[in-house]
Formats: sequence, C-alpha cells, structure tokens
Amino acid sequence: MNNSCVYPGSFDPITYGHLDIITRSAKIFDKVYVAILNNTQKKGAFPTEKRVEMIQKSCKHLDNIVIEVFDGLLVDYVRKVKSNVIIRGLRAVSDFEAEFQMSHINLQIAPDIETLFLSTLPKYSYISSSMVRELAYFKGDFSYFVPECIVEDIKQQYK
Amino acid sequence: MNNSCVYPGSFDPITYGHLDIITRSAKIFDKVYVAILNNTQKKGAFPTEKRVEMIQKSCKHLDNIVIEVFDGLLVDYVRKVKSNVIIRGLRAVSDFEAEFQMSHINLQIAPDIETLFLSTLPKYSYISSSMVRELAYFKGDFSYFVPECIVEDIKQQYK
Amino acid sequence: MNNSCVYPGSFDPITYGHLDIITRSAKIFDKVYVAILNNTQKKGAFPTEKRVEMIQKSCKHLDNIVIEVFDGLLVDYVRKVKSNVIIRGLRAVSDFEAEFQMSHINLQIAPDIETLFLSTLPKYSYISSSMVRELAYFKGDFSYFVPECIVEDIKQQYK
Amino acid sequence: MNNSCVYPGSFDPITYGHLDIITRSAKIFDKVYVAILNNTQKKGAFPTEKRVEMIQKSCKHLDNIVIEVFDGLLVDYVRKVKSNVIIRGLRAVSDFEAEFQMSHINLQIAPDIETLFLSTLPKYSYISSSMVRELAYFKGDFSYFVPECIVEDIKQQYK
Amino acid sequence: MNNSCVYPGSFDPITYGHLDIITRSAKIFDKVYVAILNNTQKKGAFPTEKRVEMIQKSCKHLDNIVIEVFDGLLVDYVRKVKSNVIIRGLRAVSDFEAEFQMSHINLQIAPDIETLFLSTLPKYSYISSSMVRELAYFKGDFSYFVPECIVEDIKQQYK
Amino acid sequence: MNNSCVYPGSFDPITYGHLDIITRSAKIFDKVYVAILNNTQKKGAFPTEKRVEMIQKSCKHLDNIVIEVFDGLLVDYVRKVKSNVIIRGLRAVSDFEAEFQMSHINLQIAPDIETLFLSTLPKYSYISSSMVRELAYFKGDFSYFVPECIVEDIKQQYK
Repeated sequence: MNNSCVYPGSFDPITYGHLDIITRSAKIFDKVYVAILNNTQKKGAFPTEKRVEMIQKSCKHLDNIVIEVFDGLLVDYVRKVKSNVIIRGLRAVSDFEAEFQMSHINLQIAPDIETLFLSTLPKYSYISSSMVRELAYFKGDFSYFVPECIVEDIKQQYK
Repeated sequence: MNNSCVYPGSFDPITYGHLDIITRSAKIFDKVYVAILNNTQKKGAFPTEKRVEMIQKSCKHLDNIVIEVFDGLLVDYVRKVKSNVIIRGLRAVSDFEAEFQMSHINLQIAPDIETLFLSTLPKYSYISSSMVRELAYFKGDFSYFVPECIVEDIKQQYK
Repeated sequence: MNNSCVYPGSFDPITYGHLDIITRSAKIFDKVYVAILNNTQKKGAFPTEKRVEMIQKSCKHLDNIVIEVFDGLLVDYVRKVKSNVIIRGLRAVSDFEAEFQMSHINLQIAPDIETLFLSTLPKYSYISSSMVRELAYFKGDFSYFVPECIVEDIKQQYK
Repeated sequence: MNNSCVYPGSFDPITYGHLDIITRSAKIFDKVYVAILNNTQKKGAFPTEKRVEMIQKSCKHLDNIVIEVFDGLLVDYVRKVKSNVIIRGLRAVSDFEAEFQMSHINLQIAPDIETLFLSTLPKYSYISSSMVRELAYFKGDFSYFVPECIVEDIKQQYK
Repeated sequence: MNNSCVYPGSFDPITYGHLDIITRSAKIFDKVYVAILNNTQKKGAFPTEKRVEMIQKSCKHLDNIVIEVFDGLLVDYVRKVKSNVIIRGLRAVSDFEAEFQMSHINLQIAPDIETLFLSTLPKYSYISSSMVRELAYFKGDFSYFVPECIVEDIKQQYK
Repeated sequence: MNNSCVYPGSFDPITYGHLDIITRSAKIFDKVYVAILNNTQKKGAFPTEKRVEMIQKSCKHLDNIVIEVFDGLLVDYVRKVKSNVIIRGLRAVSDFEAEFQMSHINLQIAPDIETLFLSTLPKYSYISSSMVRELAYFKGDFSYFVPECIVEDIKQQYK
C-alpha cells in the first residue's frame, strides 16, 4: 500500500471548497491524486486542460499532489494509480445521500477500495462550481469563492 | 506522523456496525486506537472493563488495534497517542449533522487533527447499541446485531 | 391471513394526527388494532386506561378497530393478535430515520411481519402529543389539535 | 374492495430493490399490479416491452402479480384496475419528500386512494436503475444489483 | 430604509403556496415587490407577461404589492428598488439547503441585504408550480392548488 | 404596528451564533426584544440574571435592543410587548423541522404573529451553547465561540 488517496471531481472550476479538501488530504496522505472526471456525456464549462491548469496554479504550495484527467469508472482509475482510498468532501445533507450511494456501489464492485469523507469547512460549505459559473455569467463578484490566481481565467471564459 | 487513527465511541456494547468500521480502518491505517469514552456524567449499561473485554473478543482477527479507555476531551487523547486522525462511522442523515458539528468544533480547537468519516455498510446501518440493549432487556433476539462471541456476555448483563 | 393491521403508539394523548392514520387504515384493512405501548421505563402523562378511554371516544365513528394496551416487544403483540402488518404514520424527515431503523430491526427479528407507512396529512403534520401536553400545561389553547370530545379530559389532567 | 395494490415505476430496468418491494407487497395483498409508466416526455433507456419482459422473468416465483404499461395520471390507472392502494418503496431521505409530495397531491385529487410506503431493505437501499445503466454503459459489473436472469438483456442493450 | 421586501420567484404559474407567502409578507412589510425572474437560460411554460397578469388577478385583495419582471442578479434588483430584505418561503428540508446556500452567497456579495424565510403553511407545503403544470398537461384537476381566478388561464395554456 | 421583533432563546450562555442573529435583526427592525425563556421545568446552567448580564455585555454596540426574561407561552410574551414578529436562527436541517413545527403551532394559536427565520452565518453554524458548556466543563478552549467579554464569566461558573 502506498499511502496515497484519490480526490475525484469535475473541478469546473476549482473553488476554495475543493482547495480546502486537497490541502487537508495532503496533510494526511503521502500523495494526493486530484482526478478530473472527463464526462463524455456532459461537456463542462471549461476544457479539461484549462481545469488542470487552474488546479495547478491553485495548488502551488503543495508538493505531494498529482493532477490527472480520467474517464470511465473511478475505481478503475484508483487501481491504475495503485491507491486504495477515495477522498470526498461533504458539505450538506443533500450531498450525503448521493455520496453514500456512490460509496456503497464502489465498495460492492471494488471491496479493496475505501471512500473516506472530510467535512468541508463551514465557511466554504455553501460554495459550488455551478454558483461560481452563474455569478461569472451575470458579471457578479465571485472572487470570494475561488483562489485569487484563477479569477482572471474565469473572467476570460465568460467574456 | 505515525499513520494511526483513533476510533472513539461508547461501545456499550460493541455491534457489527462498530466492528465494520474498525475492520475497514485497520486496512487503511497502520494502527487503530479504539477509544472508549468514560463518560463521567452518564453511566453506561456495561462497566468500561466489560466493554474493553467485549471489543477484545470481537477483534481477535485484527493485530493492529489498541483498545483503551479515555476521559476528558477527545482531542487531548488523540494527541496523547500521537495520532492526527479521528475516524467516525456515518449511518444516516441524523448522524451527519451532530458528527459534522463535532468535527468542526474539534478542527477549531485542534487544527492539526482531522476527522475522517466512513459510511457504515448498508446492512449494518440500522444497528445501534441502544437497540441491542432494548432487545436484550425485553428478551428479544439481538444475535443478528452483535458478534457471536459476546452474545452470552450481553445476556448475562440483562439476566 | 386475517387482513388486519396494528397501529402502535403512546397516544399520550391521541391527536388529530393519530386519528387521521387510524381512520385511513380502517378504510384499507378489515380490522385495526390500536395498540397502546405501556412503557414500564417511562411513565406517560395520562394513565393507560385514560388513554384507552380517549381513543374510544375519538373513534366512535369507526366499527372495525380494537383498542388494547401492550408491553414488551411490538412484534410479539402483532403475532398474538394474528396480524402481519404494522402501520406507522410519517410526518417529517426526522421521523423517517427512527421509523425506518425500527422497521428494519423488526423485519430482521420477525421476517413475516411488514411495516407499512402512511404520510400524515399536511394539515396535521406539525401536531404531536408532547406539544399538546405543553400547551395544556401553560393553559394555552390546544383545541385545534385534538378531537373535541377529549378536550375536557385533557384540561382535567392539567388542572 | 378487491384487496389489491398498484406498484408504479419506470423499471428502467428492474433492480433487486424493486423486486424486494414487489415480493413483500405480494405477501400482503391478494394481487399486485406492477405498473410501468410510459413517460411520453422522457424516453427511457429500454423499450417498455423489454421492461415488461425483464419484470416477468424476474417475478416468475410470484403468482399474484400483473404487469402492465400505463400513461397519463397514476390515479386514473389505479381506478381502472379497481384498486385503492398505491405502494411505493422508500430508500432514503431524499426519496421521502418527493414521494410525500406526490402522495399528498394524489390524496387531494383522489381521496379514495391511499399510498402506502415500504422501507427498502438496507442491503438494497443504494441501488437505482440509473446506477445500473451507468455501470452497464462503462462496462462495469452491475450483476450484484439486478436479478441474474436479466443481466444478459442489459448487456445486449449497451453492446 | 423603506421597510419593503422583495419576494422573487418564477411564478410559473403562481400557486396558493406563493399567495400565502405574499399575503403574510404584506402584513409585515409596508411594500412587497413580487419579482418574477426572467430566466434567459430556461424558458418558462407561461410568458412573463401572462405570469404578471395571473399574479395581479390573484393579489387583488392586497394594496401594498408591486409586481415586476427582473433579470440578472437578484441582489442588483433588490438594490434598484431600494429594499434590503429578500423573502423566501420554505416548504421542506430539500428546499432548505438550496435556499440557505443562495442566502449565504447573497450575504457574501451584498452584506447589506438580508434574506428572511417564512415557513409555508402545512396545507400548501406540497404544492409546486411544476406539479400544477404536470396536472394541467394530463388534464388532471389542479384547481385545489391555484387561485380560482387563474384556473381558466392555465387551462387555455394547455389546450 | 411598531416594527419590532422578538428573538427568544435560552442563551445559556449567549454565543457568537446568537449575537450574529441579534445584530442582523437589529438592522432590519426598529427594536429587537431578546427574550430569555425562564424554563421552570428545566433549570439552566447559568442563572437568568447572569444570562441577561452576559447578553448586555455582548450587545453594547447595539442601541435598539431590549433584554428581558419571560415564562409561559412565547406568543403571550410577544403580544405583551406589542410585537407581531418572532425571529429565529436556523443552523442545520435538524433545527429546521423542530422550528417549523413550533412556528406552525404558534401561527395556529396566534394567527397575527409571524415567525421569520434567518440563516446563521456558516462560520457560526456549528456553535451551540451546550457545546460551549461541555468545553468549559472539561477546561477546553471555548473562546472562539463566545464574545470575548464573557469568557471570564463562563470560566467562573465552571471553576
């Protein structure tokens, strides 16, 4: 076992909420794989390469993370990188049930892989990528919700 | 960092739900401290020594766990054993909020200690120590809910 | 199978919420056993005989109900009256989890007995016996929440 | 009253969760109508005839069920088959509110028809048709979640 | 401060649930702005002028309301009408989290504007515009759920 | 109508969560009555006079609040001070249902009085008086959770 974990998500774009989970995971595990789901059925707002770039900028202070794009089943990706832990952040009760359903499905099809949950810090608990996108679309101020270094990238996208 | 975790609880008595969390934690961490809270304000149904004994019997198949009794604040205990991770099982939405409140409090007073949550396996999700005690009190059959090796201990207590 | 059901509760006192569930169950099943739990560990506000009497008064319009007091495990009572269905009303999310936990426990220890849930009518969804007792204690007006014929009984109790 | 019930759904495809509810309903009621909603606004993954066929295969052990396709309002269908009970399975808190809203609407427009809820067995509580479809799409192993006799049908659909 | 409030929504169409919140708000505040969101990304079932008209008809008994259509960010509209209070109705737990998320976002980007919540009356708690539209589409009876004076308008739309 | 509101609670002791609600209410209403429930059935940890004193110290920056102790029914107190609005803070889903039940009861017995809810700021959402008391009891650091000016008062109580 290599004491690593995988933190999967859309990161479309990365928010302070995601960054909180990445930073705290990086204190517990030797290596954190930040894994961007390339959802072939539902195109994101930002191209996956742009999402990688924004995560890279936001995580410069961390030296034990790897950022990758994956498609297909999450558990196949976890095995590929030889990890056995999935990390997920929980913000609210509505997250809870969908996340637990997913974790039970994954435990059934891959019993060697565990999902561990971190509670998102309260001050970030109401932030979501979709809210950031909506604010950006309407030229509202979204700068409280994402790392400063990517504010311009997001504005560019919604110009 | 010693890659250990602390799994605190009342274990009054240990159930299959607890055992599931202990077993899965033992696969992820090098050492699991099973920490029985000695609640001086609310006496349990079983003496703490009996609870230690029942956990020992139930966990014979695991060689990387330590069973201890603690009182006072949980974070003080976690520091004493030089760990930085608390493990908690989540069964249902009603667990969720109380557990998250506690984890936020702990993160505020001890920022170096993280709480990680595991979702209890669905088949154990409705089991609780209090339900076992009530069944035992009314001479109902509680043997589906606790390890076989402690069924007699519980019956003795409620004779 | 005798097409009957058991509706268990404390009925301390019966409210319009309970009466709604009893009346609707009586349309579906040939016989409804209204089963008052005699909780030996927690004394109620009204003596069980008084609770029986208040249910009787409130259910005069129904001719297929039987009102009884039971103690011990619910499933033992259900078997004694040769039924195989427990009826429970659900008001809110907070009811949901406790009720489901109980139904799963009962299904495990008595697989031949099913629990069926009815959703309490919205207009009664916020009524509870404890709220009625508190209003009665403080001489507030609780007459919207219980059948008219038992208002005096409750006032007498809190004189 | 003919002591029957209607269990409506999309069954796209049937899962072990659905089969659990059908089997338990068939123990309580003399006849169970399994009613496949033909949603004209949202095409399913499987044609309705295929869904009928998969339910038939899965329910061979039951001799008191009728499988039919309906469109329009559910309460109209329930009246057509001369039943007065709708059966629904509840898995999680998130089901709860949508289901209760629907049951209150139905009770308002058809006061003679009651909705009864069964709690899905915990071990099936995290299974959904959409999860099965997603696993099948990505060539994951979904065989734990549906009756063995329809595994091939599903694979064929996603070839 | 002009002691007014803004009640935003889609009102597609207005229901008794909306009318309840408007009427109660009009008792607390000197002026209530009923603000119809003109969602450019998601076309409604009724044109916004028709929605204005239906609200007008339904609110004839109130003399302190103003009905307007807005687009863009809600907080910009609130400032434009010189109010500092947003009113929202809460029906169920599932409303709760989305509404709170929105209120926290709004408080972050506009700290001078507060969101106040009213609990929808239980008897209206299960009503939604989408349910009304679905009933109208299938020629079901939706007249219990909307003001009588707009029943014909809705029927016309779904002819 | 005097444009005032009543904010009831135990305030045993006041926390930053309470102070947040008081401060925000004081921006919306001309006068805020902070009403301490003197629960005759359940003695608090701090005497009511001490609770008044701690609220006074914490609210020195506000000039439109009145701090009072009341017993009996809340709606009777609201009428006594000639207000028609009750303010409550909501932190989590678990608050939601108990609070809504109470608001519906109050609306039934006093239709002229409305309850308005504010969402507690996320950063205070996990704070509760009971948590503060427990930390104080175990000599933990509770100073993040209550106004600085009352930290010593609380320490004195738990000496």
